[in-house]
Amino acid sequence: MTREELYSNIMRKRSFLCVGLDTDTKKIPAHLLKLDDPVFEFNKAIIDATAPFAIAYKPNLAFYEGAGLKGIQSLYKTLDYIRKNYPDQFIIADAKRGDIGNTAALYARSFFEEMDVDAVTVAPYMGQDSVTPFLGFDGKWVILLALTSNKGAQDFQYIQDPEGRPLFKNVLEHSLEWGGNADNMMYVVGATRAEMLSEIRTVVPDSFLLVPGIGAQGGSLADVCKYGMNSKCGLIVNSSRAIIYADSTENFAKAAAEQAKAVQQEMSSYLK
Amino acid sequence: MTREELYSNIMRKRSFLCVGLDTDTKKIPAHLLKLDDPVFEFNKAIIDATAPFAIAYKPNLAFYEGAGLKGIQSLYKTLDYIRKNYPDQFIIADAKRGDIGNTAALYARSFFEEMDVDAVTVAPYMGQDSVTPFLGFDGKWVILLALTSNKGAQDFQYIQDPEGRPLFKNVLEHSLEWGGNADNMMYVVGATRAEMLSEIRTVVPDSFLLVPGIGAQGGSLADVCKYGMNSKCGLIVNSSRAIIYADSTENFAKAAAEQAKAVQQEMSSYLK
Repeated sequence: MTREELYSNIMRKRSFLCVGLDTDTKKIPAHLLKLDDPVFEFNKAIIDATAPFAIAYKPNLAFYEGAGLKGIQSLYKTLDYIRKNYPDQFIIADAKRGDIGNTAALYARSFFEEMDVDAVTVAPYMGQDSVTPFLGFDGKWVILLALTSNKGAQDFQYIQDPEGRPLFKNVLEHSLEWGGNADNMMYVVGATRAEMLSEIRTVVPDSFLLVPGIGAQGGSLADVCKYGMNSKCGLIVNSSRAIIYADSTENFAKAAAEQAKAVQQEMSSYLK
Repeated sequence: MTREELYSNIMRKRSFLCVGLDTDTKKIPAHLLKLDDPVFEFNKAIIDATAPFAIAYKPNLAFYEGAGLKGIQSLYKTLDYIRKNYPDQFIIADAKRGDIGNTAALYARSFFEEMDVDAVTVAPYMGQDSVTPFLGFDGKWVILLALTSNKGAQDFQYIQDPEGRPLFKNVLEHSLEWGGNADNMMYVVGATRAEMLSEIRTVVPDSFLLVPGIGAQGGSLADVCKYGMNSKCGLIVNSSRAIIYADSTENFAKAAAEQAKAVQQEMSSYLK
């Protein structure tokens, strides 16, 4: 999916909501557990319920790999289901991969050809050759970790170099020297420090930012938009737990739709 | 496996060789491709041939995930094969994972319970809560990326903080504050800058280091031992391509054994 297509989906649906499919058999409604593939059935219901209010889905691979082979099967079925029924949804494999060049190239083929997702999250620690192999696929995206929403983001991402630049800013700046641009690279920037978004916009004014940390992690959507939105939206805001686990009864899909709709309506008010 | 058990295996076999199972269907001998699971058959033959000379195996998950569901099946079969036939081998899942706390906990369960490997490689960018969930498993290990062997290691890992400490040293120092110690944490340190091993030993004198970059990537085993060995060896040196792809004919396993044996004999000369 191109940047223009993504922007046009956002404006048409008046939403920049990404629903995180962090599907955990310990948390899904009990009545689903007797089905053959509870994880897929849960995802299918959540997707059908939330698709009108969302423009992206983001399965976090840990939740699928954690269930072994069966989990990977549920993931593939979920990806197929989205592609066939909601081809305008942007699919993000939240994998946070990062490895040396020849291995990164394998991961890239795995995600962009085998799984056929639109984007994959990549960790920057190993530098250029761990990222560039993901950049050579038409209409596919790298989403590079810059400033994450977790407590541990403090440990290294803010460490300043002798010129006073924090590591996350070094990551942004280097990525632009690697052939990353607003048409093939986005950045993960947590909502828990929304004011940092202004600083990030000085380095990557046009790029889309994937913003986790709304909802369960406590970030404010209003602040994210105030500090991070650009003239073409430039934001994909993710919510996982607050939507998909809004209710744990047979009513779960309806409750998820209501939550997603509430977020979408707030988003609509921030879009021009 | 405990540190004592690992050290005792090293002394008994006079080897600290880890064979990297970076198994790529594009590179394995053609005659295997007509079998039902060429990747598993290749691994099985390589393992049988090299086990006398090695103390560890390290499948890089990218190579298995890259082949989709079938690849994951080959991985599980390989892990089972090693555990059943060579229970004294230390198994490292080279996954370079790194995610927020609740997700890291899922990955930890996936690797240590579902796959039942001894160790998993973890990326440090997201800090403490992305690493500590891997530390609570008896006899299991985190192998934290510190200084990698690829070209991109230059980009961020050497960036100095205002006190002149490079990022990789910050990673080592912080990890010791997180409950990491020589009995549950190792570090990836590339062989391509063997002289940096002395500096690393000032921070983690007792810890095992997993050293890639010997062989295809050009690092010197003599230098690695000179700068990095401690009184209990403290090194696991990985070689992948130079061993497993030593020969591309039906003779591949014998050739791999010869390469592994040559490395083992050199290793033996460095062990006290």
